[in-house]
Amino acid sequence: MSSGFFKDIQKVTYKGPDSKDPLSFRFYDPDRMVMGKRMADHLRFAVAYWHSFAWPGSDPFGGQTFDRPWFRGDDMEHAKLKAEVAFELFTLLGVPFFTFHDRDIAPEGKTLAESNRNVREIADIFAKKIDETGVRLLWGTANLFSNRRFMAGAATNPDPDLFIYAAAQVKNVLEITHELGGENYVLWGGREGYETLLNTDMGRELDQLGRFLTMVVEHKNKIGFKGQILIEPKPKEPTKHQYDFDVASIYGMLQRYGLENEVKTNLEQNHAILAGHSFQHEIHLANALGLFGSLDINRGDDLLGWDTDQFAMNVPEMTLAFYEILKAGGFTSGGMNFDAKIRRQSIDPEDLLYAHVGSMDAIARGLEGAAKMLEEGDLKSFVDERYSGWDSGIGQEILKGEKSLDDLAKYVEEKNLDPQPKSGRQEYLESMVNRYS
Amino acid sequence: MSSGFFKDIQKVTYKGPDSKDPLSFRFYDPDRMVMGKRMADHLRFAVAYWHSFAWPGSDPFGGQTFDRPWFRGDDMEHAKLKAEVAFELFTLLGVPFFTFHDRDIAPEGKTLAESNRNVREIADIFAKKIDETGVRLLWGTANLFSNRRFMAGAATNPDPDLFIYAAAQVKNVLEITHELGGENYVLWGGREGYETLLNTDMGRELDQLGRFLTMVVEHKNKIGFKGQILIEPKPKEPTKHQYDFDVASIYGMLQRYGLENEVKTNLEQNHAILAGHSFQHEIHLANALGLFGSLDINRGDDLLGWDTDQFAMNVPEMTLAFYEILKAGGFTSGGMNFDAKIRRQSIDPEDLLYAHVGSMDAIARGLEGAAKMLEEGDLKSFVDERYSGWDSGIGQEILKGEKSLDDLAKYVEEKNLDPQPKSGRQEYLESMVNRYS
Amino acid sequence: MSSGFFKDIQKVTYKGPDSKDPLSFRFYDPDRMVMGKRMADHLRFAVAYWHSFAWPGSDPFGGQTFDRPWFRGDDMEHAKLKAEVAFELFTLLGVPFFTFHDRDIAPEGKTLAESNRNVREIADIFAKKIDETGVRLLWGTANLFSNRRFMAGAATNPDPDLFIYAAAQVKNVLEITHELGGENYVLWGGREGYETLLNTDMGRELDQLGRFLTMVVEHKNKIGFKGQILIEPKPKEPTKHQYDFDVASIYGMLQRYGLENEVKTNLEQNHAILAGHSFQHEIHLANALGLFGSLDINRGDDLLGWDTDQFAMNVPEMTLAFYEILKAGGFTSGGMNFDAKIRRQSIDPEDLLYAHVGSMDAIARGLEGAAKMLEEGDLKSFVDERYSGWDSGIGQEILKGEKSLDDLAKYVEEKNLDPQPKSGRQEYLESMVNRYS
Amino acid sequence: MSSGFFKDIQKVTYKGPDSKDPLSFRFYDPDRMVMGKRMADHLRFAVAYWHSFAWPGSDPFGGQTFDRPWFRGDDMEHAKLKAEVAFELFTLLGVPFFTFHDRDIAPEGKTLAESNRNVREIADIFAKKIDETGVRLLWGTANLFSNRRFMAGAATNPDPDLFIYAAAQVKNVLEITHELGGENYVLWGGREGYETLLNTDMGRELDQLGRFLTMVVEHKNKIGFKGQILIEPKPKEPTKHQYDFDVASIYGMLQRYGLENEVKTNLEQNHAILAGHSFQHEIHLANALGLFGSLDINRGDDLLGWDTDQFAMNVPEMTLAFYEILKAGGFTSGGMNFDAKIRRQSIDPEDLLYAHVGSMDAIARGLEGAAKMLEEGDLKSFVDERYSGWDSGIGQEILKGEKSLDDLAKYVEEKNLDPQPKSGRQEYLESMVNRYS
Ligand SMILES: [Co+2]
Ligand SMILES: [Co+2]
Ligand SMILES: [Co+2]
Ligand SMILES: [Co+2]
Ligand SMILES: [Co+2]
Ligand SMILES: [Co+2]
Ligand SMILES: [Co+2]
Ligand SMILES: [Co+2]
Repeated sequence: MSSGFFKDIQKVTYKGPDSKDPLSFRFYDPDRMVMGKRMADHLRFAVAYWHSFAWPGSDPFGGQTFDRPWFRGDDMEHAKLKAEVAFELFTLLGVPFFTFHDRDIAPEGKTLAESNRNVREIADIFAKKIDETGVRLLWGTANLFSNRRFMAGAATNPDPDLFIYAAAQVKNVLEITHELGGENYVLWGGREGYETLLNTDMGRELDQLGRFLTMVVEHKNKIGFKGQILIEPKPKEPTKHQYDFDVASIYGMLQRYGLENEVKTNLEQNHAILAGHSFQHEIHLANALGLFGSLDINRGDDLLGWDTDQFAMNVPEMTLAFYEILKAGGFTSGGMNFDAKIRRQSIDPEDLLYAHVGSMDAIARGLEGAAKMLEEGDLKSFVDERYSGWDSGIGQEILKGEKSLDDLAKYVEEKNLDPQPKSGRQEYLESMVNRYS
Repeated sequence: MSSGFFKDIQKVTYKGPDSKDPLSFRFYDPDRMVMGKRMADHLRFAVAYWHSFAWPGSDPFGGQTFDRPWFRGDDMEHAKLKAEVAFELFTLLGVPFFTFHDRDIAPEGKTLAESNRNVREIADIFAKKIDETGVRLLWGTANLFSNRRFMAGAATNPDPDLFIYAAAQVKNVLEITHELGGENYVLWGGREGYETLLNTDMGRELDQLGRFLTMVVEHKNKIGFKGQILIEPKPKEPTKHQYDFDVASIYGMLQRYGLENEVKTNLEQNHAILAGHSFQHEIHLANALGLFGSLDINRGDDLLGWDTDQFAMNVPEMTLAFYEILKAGGFTSGGMNFDAKIRRQSIDPEDLLYAHVGSMDAIARGLEGAAKMLEEGDLKSFVDERYSGWDSGIGQEILKGEKSLDDLAKYVEEKNLDPQPKSGRQEYLESMVNRYS
Repeated sequence: MSSGFFKDIQKVTYKGPDSKDPLSFRFYDPDRMVMGKRMADHLRFAVAYWHSFAWPGSDPFGGQTFDRPWFRGDDMEHAKLKAEVAFELFTLLGVPFFTFHDRDIAPEGKTLAESNRNVREIADIFAKKIDETGVRLLWGTANLFSNRRFMAGAATNPDPDLFIYAAAQVKNVLEITHELGGENYVLWGGREGYETLLNTDMGRELDQLGRFLTMVVEHKNKIGFKGQILIEPKPKEPTKHQYDFDVASIYGMLQRYGLENEVKTNLEQNHAILAGHSFQHEIHLANALGLFGSLDINRGDDLLGWDTDQFAMNVPEMTLAFYEILKAGGFTSGGMNFDAKIRRQSIDPEDLLYAHVGSMDAIARGLEGAAKMLEEGDLKSFVDERYSGWDSGIGQEILKGEKSLDDLAKYVEEKNLDPQPKSGRQEYLESMVNRYS
Repeated sequence: MSSGFFKDIQKVTYKGPDSKDPLSFRFYDPDRMVMGKRMADHLRFAVAYWHSFAWPGSDPFGGQTFDRPWFRGDDMEHAKLKAEVAFELFTLLGVPFFTFHDRDIAPEGKTLAESNRNVREIADIFAKKIDETGVRLLWGTANLFSNRRFMAGAATNPDPDLFIYAAAQVKNVLEITHELGGENYVLWGGREGYETLLNTDMGRELDQLGRFLTMVVEHKNKIGFKGQILIEPKPKEPTKHQYDFDVASIYGMLQRYGLENEVKTNLEQNHAILAGHSFQHEIHLANALGLFGSLDINRGDDLLGWDTDQFAMNVPEMTLAFYEILKAGGFTSGGMNFDAKIRRQSIDPEDLLYAHVGSMDAIARGLEGAAKMLEEGDLKSFVDERYSGWDSGIGQEILKGEKSLDDLAKYVEEKNLDPQPKSGRQEYLESMVNRYS
């Protein structure tokens, strides 16, 4: 029995590229085969509880704009209504996955024990819904940033009591994620950073964070959770500086604490650009370093300095992002989580649908373009050819460590080496990729 | 015998805080003792050949503005004149060090062999000048970015011939640096990055770079050079993305190639802010990770997105930067290199003096403030106290790896733990540090 | 009788530069004469209700951190308590002014009439407090951005009903500001802009805004309010683009609607840097265009892309800002309003004091430096001399419109004109201004 | 007879969307009718001498990469070769227009008179080429920024001699532009701004600039030039701050000097984003203010803080840009000038072709999408409907100035007005515009 929230909106279906119905898919056709795999299995879309059901539409200068029935009370009854409506959205969209923070789904209690019980009660409802609908859990995570207790950090708090409290909270959500069959567990360190160096000792805080991550990995193994542990990089906001700045920073930290084979990354476009990188860069680098896990799919505003978390609608950008994913073999445990919020002026229930449908379509087009680009192979051949000098001869000898500076100086002299530059063909390539989007 | 370039300007001397003579020091008093060490030995100033003698005053929309006699020909005669004037500036300022790129000091020849001979000929002049003046070499470095051959990178070029050529060039400068008694050798990878991901394979390029750095370390050991190898991070410019993005990125890369104990960093304020960090942050982090080596001292424009390399004049900023250095024990092989250029409108010889004198004074004030701040100890006590919970008890047990998530969850329950936030006192601390500048 | 909120904190007094008491002034000495005027009369400090009493410490990822008694209910009783504590802070600090938005001081009612009555009831309390304490109103303003009704703008809303509602709200606050003896009335258009051009017609919205401003000016005259109408520029946040982008934009808009002699600006450092300008630039330009009115004094973070509204603590920056003000003759109706919020981790009542005291001191130092700089006159003489060619001869003839392109081409030919560049002396000047801070 | 520079490359022709030939057009089909007008007449493409023939491939850390025959000497002979090759490129691409700076086309002489004669000699060649090829001049402009004499500005120089010299130079190019049948004359004030406020008086400089613009307008009328005078906004680079910051700033300046009906704008995407605006914003605003003139078509890098001037390749962006142009009636005297440079690694002659062809295609797709969007009308209807409340009734009365604050306050009370927000439908619209690109 429906909550009635979405009124008479019906399950969104594929109607083809010419459809003008904003509640139909023009490109997303779950069962269409792309490179031998169902489109749905390539994309592994997930809807995020956080933005679509927990965020009230506030911004730094204004409060709630979304008039949702479940915002009318902060109790279990309203949490259950929220869960009801959430699965209605998942089903209307036909997405295979969802994601949540513990505090998104259930009210905070007077004690951690009570909070944990609340989370568990909703998780039990989720278990039934998962059975009924087939919608699965992509990942769970603990909110270690909203409550004022975490204002100076969780794992990196100067006060060990906060570390302890956070550890206990993570244990609960990690176990629930395991029980619900979650495919990953995510850590986002929104408060793991500093506001001012004047009161901060980064060396201490990094060691605390290293220990925290190690405990999470140990516990995962202890309980037999086979999902992937993921860190989500973000350089700043809410904190002035966050330690999980970007893929390169996380790679250094994981190595420092011996975790580079245990933990991967959950990458977000908006966080990438806040760090000064393109989304494509972060995916490419994560793949190069063996850290690619999953995506928070959204889009930042290139002209704004904060995390706007808009719905991804840019087809050329999605094409290049997906090209990196396909080149590396596609998702394993990861997927595309809509960590995206409808604008605070998009106040109607149908806006939730328009946004997800539009973005799923833009991404599906991106997938198709990327697949075609990979299958035709022109781009890949160009790049392989460009580096081919390294595949044999002196190139290989250098890479294998068989040459010294002395050897190479002699080589220059003997060969009278005067290397000439070759065109990088950037515009040729940019024009080429325009064939695919 | 003087070149006459600086006309009748005399050696700059300390005249005290009330001096209005722009060619006197108001704060820099080389022999004054600060925390038991001569001011000059704390600061270890170096003048950079690159900006002060090689850069013509050009910008993207305009050419040379500096009408220097040594720009009138690109031959050895003019290179010798340049060397003459350079040591005149070093002497007028009374700085203990200088730094150079190979291409700053001598013209490029028709072959690498000829270029190397040119560099060596000037280096021989340097050796004599060093003897005569007592001005020493802080570090040398190879210019692997100006010539068109390097347009697609040196170590990370898709063509191994460029790697080879660069290796031979580095060998020459590294050996000359060693012979001249240089205290460090610097690598700045201005072209070690990419312009577009469309033609780039970052995994390959990082491995090339790792191999290059390893070869440099091996060669250093082979020739018995005891100086420190330094990498200078910069996130972008000239290249869209550079692999030596910031301290955190370099740390990851050094670990990947087993070099984290062999290589340290040369940090620049302007590069820090281009990467989204404060200068203080980069120094603090480098110290925390054991990577602090030396500084390129300058100042970027917070509102411009490129490397303005202005002379550092901001006393509060220098105070906080030096506080980080003093806290970590001061420079060992490193120093403060003026990687700063006078504005292209500052076309007179005396502008070179005004700039260095003004900046030396601002930094000397920063040193004095930082020393006083450390000696009075109020800031350090505040921070130590803030983290003191980690120094014993449960804090220490966690850090030692003696606690699991299960243990901590039990701890929360047994203690009924409900941690309360404590004020971070940011404004109190900001006001406190204003006592020192 | 005290509310007890500030416990035993006593009125902050001047104790001189060597004081280490964080609740004393080291530089702010209200009665000290600077350039023939009391320091207090130069600075005209105001405390802002908005940040110090209405903001709960929230950020985009976390809620309230400040546990203030007046946050425990949104009713008139708590509003009165808030007013009580506010005047206690004003008095402890000894500031001559305060500022407020209507919604800061009283709860919103069920209708605008009820809201207005609530505002008036608190205003009556203010009137008494003003009498008792001598603390006066620098300016009042209407909050046309927090309530969801304004999510798409007030004056620039696509729906005229919002314009009408906003007009009625402004009428109320403008009249109350008048009655309370306010010296200015401020308009900040946080929602007067757009989120996406896809649903926006800027031409229409600008005309709406022009009409709104005109109505405010007309009403001001009708009621005999002699205070200054001020617009506060901000380029973005909360809105993607705001029409009051910066001084230059406002100047264009005011001319378009014939208001350039009726309205001036209230400038904020953090808004300046978000627009890509320095604070000094905005003050200088406003003075050049005749638009300088008042200041919202705070400081943004150069590395963050949002409005951090931190307390201004940077002495060199304040020195240059105040130099621009003094050069133009100082404040008339304007003053320095602390549009600054203590960090959300600064949760104790005393943090409110530390912040204001530290910032008042930094600004007082800035004033003293600026005054000395102006009195010694070296900077001003340099600039005047630099432009002196325009004060007579051909320079004046050009400016008076007596010369054409033909005349000037002939002049070049006859004089064989080959103008030579002169040094801009930037480093010399930067070093010079360091004498004053 | 061909120069041979482009070897055997043939005139680029339209081969349709499936073409994989990078030297064919897939979308640009000059004679195809779009909204009743030839595609070529909508787009009015121009090739820029500046980037494609004068720029050597340098960047702040490296010199020339382009090995062009005409760079081998700075004399008239090489200038003539350059002109030859330039018209070969225009012809191969089939563009209807070109643009130039005086210093792009001819070497600077020892005096202004000699420089002017050089420019005129090449202009005479242009006149013949124009006749022969049918390629016309979109606009001419004077380079008042590259020579060191202009380092502190041209019109805004503190030294009036520079103003005079610049005036004489502009006179020459303006007259030549007129003689060559140019459709516009452009002023870009790359040095009309400041490096530091310490040596600057903005009030003076703005008045100088106002006088300069007025003289240009007067001279245009005197010689009977019917083309449009255009200012090209840019916020910074090379100068720290430029007075022609953006459309809004220019509007204010033009009004200040009574020129708002005489001068329009030449807008560039990269300059828009450096100013914190989208390209679409600048076009939309210029249209709203009556200042739209012409476009410098290129693309900046959203993650870099300088003017990369890349070739525009992003179809969705071009679609929205062209939608704004079509809505306002299309170009009159303006056109799309490729103020874009091939990357410095794109060193081959064919790279010049790949770049222009790829970008012309991307823009042609943008035109087609925009035209379809306008013809189908869904977006425009949505916007019109959104503002329809202002078209009559109280909305019109307000806009006509018939209502006061008192009237509107009464209206709220009488109607018991409690306006409710309506969804802005941003995601719905974003998804809708994806139908057109
Ligand atoms: Co995310
Ligand atoms: Co985000
Ligand atoms: Co440097
Ligand atoms: Co630099
Ligand atoms: Co403000
Ligand atoms: Co602000
Ligand atoms: Co341009
Ligand atoms: Co440009």
